[in-house]
Formats: sequence, C-alpha cells, structure tokens
Amino acid sequence: MTATLPSSADAAKFLADFHEVAKIGATPNGGVDRQAATAEDRLTREWFRGFAEARGWEVRVDGIGNQFALLEFVPGAPHILLGSHLDSQPLGGRFDGAYGVIAALHAADRIANRVAAGEPRPTVNLAVVNWFNEEGGRFAPSIMGSSVFAGLMDEKQMLAVQDLAGVTVKDALTAIGYLGRDARPEISGYAEIHIEQGRILEREATPIGAVDYSWYTQKLDIEVLGEQSHTGATAMADRHDALVGAAKVILKVHEVTEHFEPETLVSSVGQLTLEPNSPIVVARRVHLVADLRAADKAVVLTARDRLRAEMAEIAAATGLTINARDFDVRDNQHYPEAGLALAERVAQELGLGARRIRTMAGHDSVAINRIAPTVMMFIPSIDGVSHCEREFSRDDDMVAGVSMLTEVAWNMLHGALDHAHSEPALQAAGS
Amino acid sequence: MTATLPSSADAAKFLADFHEVAKIGATPNGGVDRQAATAEDRLTREWFRGFAEARGWEVRVDGIGNQFALLEFVPGAPHILLGSHLDSQPLGGRFDGAYGVIAALHAADRIANRVAAGEPRPTVNLAVVNWFNEEGGRFAPSIMGSSVFAGLMDEKQMLAVQDLAGVTVKDALTAIGYLGRDARPEISGYAEIHIEQGRILEREATPIGAVDYSWYTQKLDIEVLGEQSHTGATAMADRHDALVGAAKVILKVHEVTEHFEPETLVSSVGQLTLEPNSPIVVARRVHLVADLRAADKAVVLTARDRLRAEMAEIAAATGLTINARDFDVRDNQHYPEAGLALAERVAQELGLGARRIRTMAGHDSVAINRIAPTVMMFIPSIDGVSHCEREFSRDDDMVAGVSMLTEVAWNMLHGALDHAHSEPALQAAGS
Repeated sequence: MTATLPSSADAAKFLADFHEVAKIGATPNGGVDRQAATAEDRLTREWFRGFAEARGWEVRVDGIGNQFALLEFVPGAPHILLGSHLDSQPLGGRFDGAYGVIAALHAADRIANRVAAGEPRPTVNLAVVNWFNEEGGRFAPSIMGSSVFAGLMDEKQMLAVQDLAGVTVKDALTAIGYLGRDARPEISGYAEIHIEQGRILEREATPIGAVDYSWYTQKLDIEVLGEQSHTGATAMADRHDALVGAAKVILKVHEVTEHFEPETLVSSVGQLTLEPNSPIVVARRVHLVADLRAADKAVVLTARDRLRAEMAEIAAATGLTINARDFDVRDNQHYPEAGLALAERVAQELGLGARRIRTMAGHDSVAINRIAPTVMMFIPSIDGVSHCEREFSRDDDMVAGVSMLTEVAWNMLHGALDHAHSEPALQAAGS
Repeated sequence: MTATLPSSADAAKFLADFHEVAKIGATPNGGVDRQAATAEDRLTREWFRGFAEARGWEVRVDGIGNQFALLEFVPGAPHILLGSHLDSQPLGGRFDGAYGVIAALHAADRIANRVAAGEPRPTVNLAVVNWFNEEGGRFAPSIMGSSVFAGLMDEKQMLAVQDLAGVTVKDALTAIGYLGRDARPEISGYAEIHIEQGRILEREATPIGAVDYSWYTQKLDIEVLGEQSHTGATAMADRHDALVGAAKVILKVHEVTEHFEPETLVSSVGQLTLEPNSPIVVARRVHLVADLRAADKAVVLTARDRLRAEMAEIAAATGLTINARDFDVRDNQHYPEAGLALAERVAQELGLGARRIRTMAGHDSVAINRIAPTVMMFIPSIDGVSHCEREFSRDDDMVAGVSMLTEVAWNMLHGALDHAHSEPALQAAGS
C-alpha cells in the first residue's frame, strides 16, 4: 500500500473543522482561551462528541476527563490511539493541541472510509483521544490526563489538585459534566501530530519533523519567607521583604542559562504569588515556580545545583528563608526507532521532506510512549512562538500533517510497529 | 477644668471591649484579618452599632460605608468627631485602627456620663466614626472613606473600585449590608488616637506622641509588558519575559533608598500580579505598585525621577515596555499648632510624658485635617512593627491614650480649637 495525498475535498473538510473549533473560546487577537475544565473546554468536548457520534463511533470519558472516540474493526482487539489535547493556555494559541486532535479525528474518518471502500481491514481497532489538561495552566502538573492513563500519575491525587481559586480537578470536571466512569481502551500503539513551537522546521523549510527524543525537564517549587510589615511606617532596616528575595531568585533563574552554551538550557519563572499582596504591606511570602529544560540531563542538574547554592546565598545575605524542592521531573524520553523509520518512509511516499527533531516542550506522547510504541510528529510553527495568541501554522502544512498522521496510523493498524518497544521506564514523571 | 485619669473600673471596661473586638477575625498568631467589606468587617460594625444603640446614640451609615454614632448636646450644632477604622490588613494586627475606634467610643461614653452628672454642657455635639477602608489592602487607594468624607476622593469613582477578584466596593458594601444613605454629620473638629507603628515612643519611654505632620508619600503604578511564550519550547533569545523586567524594577525600588541618608526614604513593592501566571508560560504582563515615602517631598520626587530613569534603562536593555504613573500622591500635612498645644497641655495635666512626632504612615486624620481642625495622637508600638500579627501595644499605654483622647475631646467640645485652622489645601490626595 502506497500512501496518497488526500483529495482537495478532504483537505477542505479538515480546514473547515479546524477553523470552526478555533472559534470556541476565541480571543480578540486570534488566539483561544480554553483552560482545562472550563466552560470553553466543555464546548470543544461537545464538538468532539458531535464529530464522533455523527459517524457512529462510541464515545467514552474516563475518570480523569480524558475523552475517547472508538472505531471497532476487530472485536476485542486493542487500539491504535491517535490524539492530542483541546485545552489551551490562558490567552493561548489555536494550534497547540487542537491541531492534533482535529487531525486525528479526520485521519480516523479517512481510515474508516477506506476500510468501508474495501481496502485491507486493520488487524486492530482505532481510537481518537482528547487528553485532559495537557497545558497545566490552571491545574499543575501539566500532561495530567495522559500521565494518569499511562499510570505515571495517581488519579485520586490528581483529582484533588486545586487551581489558584481552590477549585479541585474533580469539582471542575463534575461542573462541566466530564468526570466520566468509562473503561479506558486498551492500546497497542499511539501517534500524535503537533506544531513544533520552535523555528527549526520553518527555517529549513521542512514540512515534517519526526520527533526522536524529549528534553530533560524539571521544575523548582520555591518559597521565599520574610515578615509582613508596613510599607510606610517600618524602617528599611527592619523590613524582611520576601518580594525582594524573590526578585533576586527570578534573575538568577533567568541568568543561569548564561553559564552554558547558548540555547543548551532554557529557564523561566512563569508562576508567582505573593502574600498578602497589598500595596502598603511588605510581602511576608512569595511562592514561585521555575522551569528548567535541556537536552542533556546533566545540564539541568548542574543548573539546578547552581541555583540552589545561589538561593542559599540570597537567604544568608537577606535574612529571608528560601525553601526549594524539585518537582515535575521528566527524564529524557526516546521514541522508538521503528516509529521514526515509519514516519520517514511515509513522508517519502507522500513526497514530503522530513527530519528528525527533539522536543523541548512536554507532550502527551511523552507519557504514552512509556506504555506503548509511539510516533510523534511536528509541523512547522511560524516564528517559533507558542503559548500565545500569535502562534501560527499554515493551512498547507496542517493539511500535509493530516496526511502524514493518516498514513502512519494506517500502517500501525496493519502491524507496522507490532515489534517495536515503548520507552523503558526510567524515572516516574510528575515525581 | 483639670483633666483626670479614669477610674480603674473605666479602664477595665475599655480593656474588656478592646480584647473582645480583637476576637473578631482573630488569626492563630494573635492578629486579625478583617479586610474592608468582608464578613469580619461586618461583625465589627455590628459590635460598633451595639455599643452605640445600648447608650441610645443615633447610628448612621453614609454612601461609602462610613459608620457614625451621634451624641446630641446642642440641637443643630456641628460635631466634634472622634474615631479611626476597624478594618485591617490581611493577617494584620489587632491594634491598628481598632484601638482608635474603641478608644473614641469609650471617650464619648465618659463624656456623656460627665455631662449627665452635671459637668459643663458642651457647646457643640459629639460623634464617633468607624471609617471605611483605611487599609486599602483589598480596595486601593487606602484612606478611602475619610477621603470621600473630606471631598478629596469622588464617591462614585470609589464605589466602582474593584478588588483583585473583580468585586466592586459598591457590591461588597451591599453584600454586608453597609452601603448606607444617611446624611453625613457636619463637623467642626476631629481627634484620633492610633498606635505609632514605629519605635520612637517606645525607645524614649514616652507614652504620648502629638503628631505634628505627615510624610510626603506617593505610589507608582507600574506595568511591565513582554510577550507570552512557552517556558520550554521558546529559545531564550526569543523570550520577552515581563517577570524578569519586573524583578529588576523591584530591586531598583528597594535600592533607591541607599542613595539617600539612612531612613530618610522608605520604599517597597507590596502588590504584584502577573499574567497569565502559569508555570509553563513566560509572563506577558506584570503589574506592580511601588510605595515611596519621606519627610521631605524633594526626596520622594528625586527618588521617583531616578526610578523612572532606571525603568527606562531596563526597558531599553530588555526590549520590554515599562509604563509607570504616579498615583495616590499625598503631600505633607501639618496638624494645627493649637491642637498640638492642646494635646501637650492635656498630657501635662494627666501627668503623661508627650513629644511631637511625625507620621510616616497615612491616617484618616490626614484627610479630615483638610476640612476641620484635627488633633492626632500616638501611643507606643512595641518593636515598631505593624501591618502584621505580632503588632503590639501595652494595656497601660492604651488606657492612658483613652484618657488623653477623652480630655482632648472634652476641651474641643468646650471651644478649645474654635479659632484653629485646618490644613490649607495644597494638593489633592488620591490624585
């Protein structure tokens, strides 16, 4: 079977759906705001369900809000799973995650049509997934639904996670009607397509990236403790200003990358809360989260140790207390060689250029690759920006990606990765 | 008429009430949490009303939530007003404000008893006030209720102010049943007693401070604008991290005091919010409020100009946009000499040591001094700490202060400040 590019009618149907879903939670500057388990997240889930039910596919929701559409070819056989996530960052982009879910639904639809038209029947079943809370903007950690599915995070523990307003995952899912009880499909393989969120494919004019491994990442949960006092009446010498200590930590987190080769390490503080957060009160406590990532685990650990030492110096110099703990540590994950070879062969058959590429961002496929052979693919991002409203990918690149996903899935449904291995478990994610 | 110290029964009644009110919104570490227009604020207001109604005094609430208790001696005459505020900072102290209101109620009670016992009838009426939102922790600016009363802030504008959760002053006051419509009492003088919130009286073992002037203060409302992006996938060189810029601003605000003689200038950033505040998203916007105070206006203005220049440098060096605007500018205010002389005379008659002292913190009396001759007094604070749970003043100092306030009010009710002038209007507060 040689892969073929879709008809222009198929491409148009995909694009119509993609741009329709982008209207849900749309923001004035071209992005979307659909954080996990919000009203907007519910609307995308209703759309997903409508797509599946219109085609007679079974829809399931599991105990952590993952949403599945199931296509049965061989009763009782496991599933090749395709998907990504429909949730977004606050004021996020309309491509991150949503592209992969809509591409997966259309790939499944094309495969169902091909089987119905008499092409060789798959040896396993097919499913599409919309993973819960990949973004982690509202509920930390990110990649939550797929990590629970893969047994890397505990469902009960995740259901108890609270957002900044104190709402639990369980209550938020219940409120939108998506705390399910359905059985999770058994899977024998997983494929996902996503925007690159970097500049490599665009710069090289390569339409497809076959992702070979993920960066080593970890977060630091940091607490700076001072003493609450009056911003007017308290002498400077008597202040123990937690925010001053936090500002020094933020700059150290930013500057630590300069001790390594350019772009071997990235780091930022993205979340910070201070107490009591009153204009005329010196802060008693600041909580912040730093995010460190590098291809090389040793680089992250060296940077982490350096930051710990610098925080100890700041604490000693200011008289503040600074507590820091590692969390959300995610080891390098390697996608199976057989999957990479499959993606490269399919790209060649479709006449699409492809290259191997690492991912700096986390993805649901990183979690699923721990339990099933996984193929992860990228399409180009314009300007390399992501998690913002001006995130952009071109229609023709999206259309090419849907063809890639369709053909990769078709091959997996016919045994292409039956002898591939998933990533050996090294270290629990989310630990 | 020579001033006299209260009976031990009067002192005990005051202390019983003071320690009773400290239970409202009490925190585990000995403080209180009674932010403006919260359920706890309502409870203190109910207590105030109960105290007044038990004595047959008329209770009024005006359109910005100021609560008054009125004692009529001369129908139609203006009032000498005594008071302070019962709201607190989040995890604030139990003395700041509450002491002055409870002292005022007890002073009024003693005066009523003296008049009933046949002492010379006052030539004007008496009122006690619990000002709305002196602290400004929930709703900025601070000193809101008294500033509206004095015509320095616009009532409608203040009712529209929102807290960080988006709740307006109007809705919050309505929710606790304290958005009133009663007429404001006409006043011909004002007296307030408060804890010092500094160390001078304690260090010098002086029980009474007669406040001669207030520091020059202003705030800077600062906005740092970057671009939202992915903390993992975005190259360091492509990030425009608003929080990194904000951290540099926070340190400059802290360090600016070092360019002046020690303790001539105090400055802090107490409030900061970042957007989107997600652990894996580089911040696009940080909003912060810096507070600058000095005895000398020129010092504040020099520091302000220096900070503006430094922020422009940070913006140029980082490619971020930094917007800063002055707000809540409060000029030095001088309390009338006749009131200072009165406080000093009364202290001498009571056998209490007194000294003149400036206030670094803002107070309701600063606003009211703009429309009526005002006497402002301090009692000692232990360790000089305030706006925190370990704020403390001794019982005997509090009792002495109630006597001071009683005698100062008694004198004002008999014409002592009839020819004094209020502070000439220099510059609008809250501008």
